[in-house]
Amino acid sequence: MRIGVSKRSLAEAASVLERIAPNRPNLPSLGYLYFEGAEGELVLRASNGELDLELRVPAEVEGEGAGLVPAHVFGQIVRSLPGELAALELSSEGLEVESGSFLTRMAVSNPESFPPLDLGDGDAVSLPAQELAKALSRVRYAAANEEYRAVFRGIQLELRPDRMRAVATDGFRLALYDAPLSRAPEAKRVLPARSADELVRVLKDASGEVSVRLGSARLGVEARGFRMGIGLMEGEFPDYERVVPENFVFEIRFDAEALRQTIERVRVLADKGNQRIDLHLRPGALEVAAEGEFGRGREELPVETEGEGPLMAAFNAQYLVDALKGLKGQASFRLSGPNSPSVLTGVEDPGYLAVVVPLRV
Amino acid sequence: MRIGVSKRSLAEAASVLERIAPNRPNLPSLGYLYFEGAEGELVLRASNGELDLELRVPAEVEGEGAGLVPAHVFGQIVRSLPGELAALELSSEGLEVESGSFLTRMAVSNPESFPPLDLGDGDAVSLPAQELAKALSRVRYAAANEEYRAVFRGIQLELRPDRMRAVATDGFRLALYDAPLSRAPEAKRVLPARSADELVRVLKDASGEVSVRLGSARLGVEARGFRMGIGLMEGEFPDYERVVPENFVFEIRFDAEALRQTIERVRVLADKGNQRIDLHLRPGALEVAAEGEFGRGREELPVETEGEGPLMAAFNAQYLVDALKGLKGQASFRLSGPNSPSVLTGVEDPGYLAVVVPLRV
Repeated sequence: MRIGVSKRSLAEAASVLERIAPNRPNLPSLGYLYFEGAEGELVLRASNGELDLELRVPAEVEGEGAGLVPAHVFGQIVRSLPGELAALELSSEGLEVESGSFLTRMAVSNPESFPPLDLGDGDAVSLPAQELAKALSRVRYAAANEEYRAVFRGIQLELRPDRMRAVATDGFRLALYDAPLSRAPEAKRVLPARSADELVRVLKDASGEVSVRLGSARLGVEARGFRMGIGLMEGEFPDYERVVPENFVFEIRFDAEALRQTIERVRVLADKGNQRIDLHLRPGALEVAAEGEFGRGREELPVETEGEGPLMAAFNAQYLVDALKGLKGQASFRLSGPNSPSVLTGVEDPGYLAVVVPLRV
Repeated sequence: MRIGVSKRSLAEAASVLERIAPNRPNLPSLGYLYFEGAEGELVLRASNGELDLELRVPAEVEGEGAGLVPAHVFGQIVRSLPGELAALELSSEGLEVESGSFLTRMAVSNPESFPPLDLGDGDAVSLPAQELAKALSRVRYAAANEEYRAVFRGIQLELRPDRMRAVATDGFRLALYDAPLSRAPEAKRVLPARSADELVRVLKDASGEVSVRLGSARLGVEARGFRMGIGLMEGEFPDYERVVPENFVFEIRFDAEALRQTIERVRVLADKGNQRIDLHLRPGALEVAAEGEFGRGREELPVETEGEGPLMAAFNAQYLVDALKGLKGQASFRLSGPNSPSVLTGVEDPGYLAVVVPLRV
């Protein structure tokens, strides 16, 4: 089999797939990329055992064949090729890659040892690619990276008749993002947050709709140029809606980015252990203060307020920064006191809602 | 004492000094920055015990005083200040830093526990700042990072009547850089390579001449805005001149950057252990080849040749890449065979010379 392909397209695909292929695979074949010639396309695949990704690169293909090459070595080679085109030739001797005056011959392993692309069962539904990517990436921070309950490392994707929602929580905080939708069936699936990260990355260049298959054990996503199968998480996602409070005694409105920068400054003085910062609210103003072993710091921020003050609540600075990070423009923060969950929402970004629980002081 | 200073100047100085202040100091005071008000200047110092650096930042100063603040916390605070100006106030309560609506008060430690700036003894000589920085940075790669003989972790700075030379070797390779100079006394001093890195960084913004004091145990460098004292290395630097060969059987001339890129491509296939790449030279052409567990690669490069060929020599790819990295334009590589040291020089950069010893194969 001979394949002619653009060096740039091949290098981009290899880089995306290399991220999936584990550095220390527990199945040897997962350290490899699968390649196969198709009509007018070079098909490339990687898998980490939990997530399978297939990319299709436009190519001139003569003959047929498939094989496995070591993912990271192949990636390094194609990125460094000197020419604009790469010529691949698969024979019984291995895979030759030629570009400009550079020539390499790599050993090729048996493609049958590679796991098949598993997109799962179930019906497919069309979802807007950019809204799906936004929903997943906006709530990602609230998922746990390591936690005793596995489901806290997941993001729940919910389809409702009028919207799509992504929600994540680590038990201490929660983030959800709603995007309006029509004609969707009702469904809930929990994706591992790390797999959601990879899905967001491949959706970055997608436009229009993607087809999402809501299987019992896998989520299958298909669009022009790629197919991805993601192993779903088992276990019940927490009944989070009852922890989102609805009544508050005080609300502030402010520029989200300005508050985030204020917190970043003041937190330098905070206790390294609990990262505590205090929010002192009174009509018309918010003071952010912290004190730790090196001294103390404070900054006042003009804000719009509504409700009865003064009021004080202490938070983990990192949790507030995380919750504010994706917000643009005006935001609203509603509190009831030092022991009640507080709710942050975007005024100019109404799909977003975060619950942050104050520190007990 | 009150000090008014530009936030940007203060943040830049703090960042440079923070790099010097060790994260885990073996003397507690080295984790701090020393500050002192002077006439029209804020004086800041850091030390890692081996290297002392003083920076002077233009400032409006009222009263007098000095103190120590934790280096990394102070750096974080000044970088994040919201205004263009910072107001510092030192009192018995500590150091207040105010900027915009942000205010912090930090605990201040006794300045007497900080080591005094030690610029050493000896006469001062004027050296061109940029040439000094270039000489040190061009040979830096050839110094060892960890080696049984401490002196291999140093860079020898030599002053000769007609030139300044920097030279480094780790016992396996050598790099030297000559810059023309007039009126210099003869002297040799060995600087720790890591201290030379810091000197190169502060020289980056210097112009004209710097004053260099060639002490018996320290090198003292002074220019507008900074003073640096560097503890010198003890022990005899190797008698390197006798290992630089002068007669060769073959010379190639080529574009340094093109050869470096070719080696970077081919080395992907090289054995991970010894990083071996083979150079096959014949009249008019150079072939670079490697072979390892994943396959083999090769690339031919058109070169100008002189001498009797063909000839083959094997090298550690990283050593060749390091030696080629700083070179611009045409370069010359002279060899005598697979067991003789080879010499790389810059045709358009005649001050540079590197000795690379072939791998024994």
